Amino acid sequence: MSQPLNVTQKLIKSHLVEGELEDFEPGEEIGLKIDQTLTQDATGTMVMLELEAMELEEAQTEVSCQYVDHNLIQTDYKNPDDHVFLKSAAERFGMWFSRPGNGVSHPIETERFAKPGKTLAGSDSHTPASGCMGMLAIGAGGLDVAFAIAGEPMFIKKPKVLGVEVKGELPDWVSAKDVVLEMLRRYDVDGATGYVIEYFGEGLKNLSTMDRHVIANMGTEMGATSTVFPADDEVRRFMKSQGREDEFTELLADEGAEYDKYEELILDDVEPLIALPSSPGNVVPVREVEGQDIYQSYVGSSANPGYRDFWMASEIVKGKTVNANVSYDINPTSRQIIENMVKNDVMFNLVQSGARIHQAGCNGCIGMGQAPASGQNSLRTVPRNFPDRSGTPEDSVFLVSPETAAASALTGKITDPRDLEELYGMSYPKFKELDNPIVNTDMLTEPVPKEKRGKIKKGPNISTMPNFDELSDFEVPVLLKMGDDISTDEILRAGAEVLPFRSNIPEISKFTLDVVDKNFHDRAMKAKEEHGGHVVIAGENYAQGSSREHAAIAPRYLGMRAVIAKSYARIGWQNLVNFGIPPLEFKDNGAYEDIDQGDVLAVNDIRSAIENGNEIVVHNKTKDKKYEVKHSFSERQKEAVLYGGVINRFKAKKKAG
Amino acid sequence: MSQPLNVTQKLIKSHLVEGELEDFEPGEEIGLKIDQTLTQDATGTMVMLELEAMELEEAQTEVSCQYVDHNLIQTDYKNPDDHVFLKSAAERFGMWFSRPGNGVSHPIETERFAKPGKTLAGSDSHTPASGCMGMLAIGAGGLDVAFAIAGEPMFIKKPKVLGVEVKGELPDWVSAKDVVLEMLRRYDVDGATGYVIEYFGEGLKNLSTMDRHVIANMGTEMGATSTVFPADDEVRRFMKSQGREDEFTELLADEGAEYDKYEELILDDVEPLIALPSSPGNVVPVREVEGQDIYQSYVGSSANPGYRDFWMASEIVKGKTVNANVSYDINPTSRQIIENMVKNDVMFNLVQSGARIHQAGCNGCIGMGQAPASGQNSLRTVPRNFPDRSGTPEDSVFLVSPETAAASALTGKITDPRDLEELYGMSYPKFKELDNPIVNTDMLTEPVPKEKRGKIKKGPNISTMPNFDELSDFEVPVLLKMGDDISTDEILRAGAEVLPFRSNIPEISKFTLDVVDKNFHDRAMKAKEEHGGHVVIAGENYAQGSSREHAAIAPRYLGMRAVIAKSYARIGWQNLVNFGIPPLEFKDNGAYEDIDQGDVLAVNDIRSAIENGNEIVVHNKTKDKKYEVKHSFSERQKEAVLYGGVINRFKAKKKAG
Repeated sequence: MSQPLNVTQKLIKSHLVEGELEDFEPGEEIGLKIDQTLTQDATGTMVMLELEAMELEEAQTEVSCQYVDHNLIQTDYKNPDDHVFLKSAAERFGMWFSRPGNGVSHPIETERFAKPGKTLAGSDSHTPASGCMGMLAIGAGGLDVAFAIAGEPMFIKKPKVLGVEVKGELPDWVSAKDVVLEMLRRYDVDGATGYVIEYFGEGLKNLSTMDRHVIANMGTEMGATSTVFPADDEVRRFMKSQGREDEFTELLADEGAEYDKYEELILDDVEPLIALPSSPGNVVPVREVEGQDIYQSYVGSSANPGYRDFWMASEIVKGKTVNANVSYDINPTSRQIIENMVKNDVMFNLVQSGARIHQAGCNGCIGMGQAPASGQNSLRTVPRNFPDRSGTPEDSVFLVSPETAAASALTGKITDPRDLEELYGMSYPKFKELDNPIVNTDMLTEPVPKEKRGKIKKGPNISTMPNFDELSDFEVPVLLKMGDDISTDEILRAGAEVLPFRSNIPEISKFTLDVVDKNFHDRAMKAKEEHGGHVVIAGENYAQGSSREHAAIAPRYLGMRAVIAKSYARIGWQNLVNFGIPPLEFKDNGAYEDIDQGDVLAVNDIRSAIENGNEIVVHNKTKDKKYEVKHSFSERQKEAVLYGGVINRFKAKKKAG
Repeated sequence: MSQPLNVTQKLIKSHLVEGELEDFEPGEEIGLKIDQTLTQDATGTMVMLELEAMELEEAQTEVSCQYVDHNLIQTDYKNPDDHVFLKSAAERFGMWFSRPGNGVSHPIETERFAKPGKTLAGSDSHTPASGCMGMLAIGAGGLDVAFAIAGEPMFIKKPKVLGVEVKGELPDWVSAKDVVLEMLRRYDVDGATGYVIEYFGEGLKNLSTMDRHVIANMGTEMGATSTVFPADDEVRRFMKSQGREDEFTELLADEGAEYDKYEELILDDVEPLIALPSSPGNVVPVREVEGQDIYQSYVGSSANPGYRDFWMASEIVKGKTVNANVSYDINPTSRQIIENMVKNDVMFNLVQSGARIHQAGCNGCIGMGQAPASGQNSLRTVPRNFPDRSGTPEDSVFLVSPETAAASALTGKITDPRDLEELYGMSYPKFKELDNPIVNTDMLTEPVPKEKRGKIKKGPNISTMPNFDELSDFEVPVLLKMGDDISTDEILRAGAEVLPFRSNIPEISKFTLDVVDKNFHDRAMKAKEEHGGHVVIAGENYAQGSSREHAAIAPRYLGMRAVIAKSYARIGWQNLVNFGIPPLEFKDNGAYEDIDQGDVLAVNDIRSAIENGNEIVVHNKTKDKKYEVKHSFSERQKEAVLYGGVINRFKAKKKAG
């Protein structure tokens, strides 16, 4: 008999593209078949341009859904143009489309598409939320998801599994958000890096599927690769309530399954918790900070998306009026949840108490509105409180449960919800699942039949993914010589000035490296014209930080033929390979000292050198010196670099059949 | 027996501060006692700074309410800081405060405060909407409203009265919006300039108070000073439904009352109308443009704010799904209306049809969100479709009734709502007023009792109104010599870069005249330090265009001691006087030619010259020449200029008792 497996191991095993699970050590790269994908609008525009560049005929997954939930504020044409573009692209590639205003991707994915035993790749870091359904749901970069949509495997490092045994039952006034905050108190923001967190044990029967969604969603905050729950009777009940009982299959850990690490979580011992500014890991009991004045109490987001959470937020304020100094901001998860809120007086009670009701979507959770006033405290049920994420510099954002948010909205101060018993003579409102929740999927548009697929519609701000040449020899100037630890925020910064151009490579490329050199764009365009491109020189740890792909695409567009550095950050290095800029390393760092900005560097026979594993020699024409450089490409990556990037490679392979 | 009067004449007569109505010719300035004021957040921040500078102890009106409805998008601290500031200022001055999310000012004013026989001054151009209640409601600049709050009279040109006799009854599928569009078809955007439009006649019984609100609101679009309806039994019914029957008094035109101009309006003849891009005056029958694809259908704003309008928008789409290409954006007017929408299934039917529900407020009507995609048609029930007002350059916005908006949302094309009978077998949903509408005023905060009034709270972006010196002699350089028709958009431009600093004079002054000269601010600060200020020279029609006060305040802050021009635009001239920059005119325009930028000009004995009506002589020290200049100040304005502006004058008079 084979070894007993936990749920995570079963999910990986059944999706492993080559070899057996035991063949790989934790941390080694494994390839997984992806059944479903999720893209949202902030990252999805680039994914769609990549699919277009890959000349994809149609999505190869079981389900791929494009959501619009992030950029709902339409102060000019750019966001609405993106919405129109994404709809037309989803139609073009035979994908589902969730219309603007339909709601937040993760809970809709869970309600509508998530299936026990399946894999999901999403271009959003909170994709693991659907792990509440007994599936392996992983957040990834845009190009990874684009390849998954095209039917290619996804490569991840083989995770270890952290088994969390759940026991007992939650006390009154304590809910799932407090459970995951308790985990964050223990693990902080990086304690689960390299792990899938798997919950099991008798206590699970006391956590609903949407409670588990709350917990799985914020596993991301601990650095986990994903979070996984078993598909048990509760999941069956949930799927039945969504009219999908027929899609349920049980998926439980085998008797005697083992975990790489074990943790015990006794629900009875959890109390109302709060993450202080400005990290989800700064968790303390609400009691420790109670009494501080608040400006805002905010309910919603993928971290507290269930009907229960809004019901609780309304039940506590029902028949009362929120404090005169508090903005009680309610962000309904989805159109379906709004309907249930309206039909069951949740909406009425909230509005009557003084709540501000916003449209269904991510909204303030990703800094799209609802920024707090200066120097004022904001209590939010969202997953993150990183500095300035709210939009207000030096903000003061706390993460809490809906119970704590609602209690504090009433009093105007940070309040332990257990105090409501004494303050208002209130007893804990016990939530009962709706017998027949309204299910409405009209705004989730099915894939268009092949014969009806039209052209992709692009507004003036949406460009095409540029075509990039295959790798060739060069003789070009060193346009920039940089030091150590150059981050992707320096290579291509974020912010309100730059982000609106995320689907426009020519425009966004104008900001390339402008933090380092204001004239970089103009100089690069000149070098492209006069010399066919340029190279840059850097020290250690080039391209650290955010994973944004634009930090490779934009320089490539400007004619960057290679980077030569002392070393690279992992994701930045991968992005350079992916988009066909060879990231080369000095064999001898003395060469770094030798090369000056403006020197002309030439490389000959670069293709055969990479193909045959020969040495690559860089000739400094200005100083008439030669340096050896190296690379560490896998075979697959060698091909990609020769083709001029993974997209070119994909197209060529497809053509070859 | 005295002459029979119309409603407008009665309202003016009962509020005239000095003299009899007959003493004044139309167009002459009259002073009116103001009973109520309305300020919104976009203009109210400046009003509050002005009240602070005036050292006002408390509002002297019967009702003054500060609303927050314009700037609800909080992408950083500036708008929420303004909200906190406005709340604290309303508390400080003993005013009402309508909290963010409570809704749009005009309909709330009508429901809650408007009273037959009263006057209302509002720092918003759609203030006349409350004219539906038999009151004289006038939109004005911020400082005018600030003085009204301080108990000072408001000065307007005595209007003529356009009497519109309403006959008959509206056909099915036609509503109040079509009525005012019919008026716009006849009068275009300036046909009622200098008039109050007064509606009367037997047909009025077929128009509800909120229908009349729709019509009064958009009188502004015809250039009218205001729009007035009688306070009849329908107004009594409306006030009763709002729990305010005791505040009703009948106010009708006298038998035989006359009007300066007469118009007949037969309701039976009105058909569904639409204003084409990009003017409210481009009105044609919907039939003429039906069939064009639309991207957006938008319901809400002060131009269609009644429960009826949302009920209609929901009744038409009930049980159906809006077209896949249409964003059906619903902007509920107020919290009270949301409650009624929720309780009566209006909200449910809208959401189920696919509508996007936004928070209560002005929102897209003033370009705060919901901008349409590029090159796509947007149908809106709002009052204005000026170019780019939506936020999208070269937008294509049409003005329609809720019936036309809902019909077109279903079909995805501009649709005459009468076609719904054939298309969907629908009969016209006949609206019946709610028997017991929910009234909820919890988010409308009463004036704070004197002993509880705290300090005004100012975020980092909110400054104090600077103190300005009284008028004195000067010897300063000509910092700029400009040509004809310099507009307030050149003196101080609008736009997203500048507007967030509307409550911060030092910051906004940095943009002063930068359209003309990028270095103006720096040069002015230098001249202020070295010479105690500067003057500017201009040609004809200086300070034309928008009425924004900042075009006088900011230059004054930078040390502008006088403008010398060939001539001035009316409002710009008044603003200069109000803020203590004497607008002087060349007696001989030859002097304009003679003066060069950089010349040093000196004026001596300016105070006695103005006080005694003597000539003002400008000595060009650089060229050693002298020029005579003149002014046309009234006695009150002479005082204001000598004091250094109307705020200083007000403070001095108050001190003197």
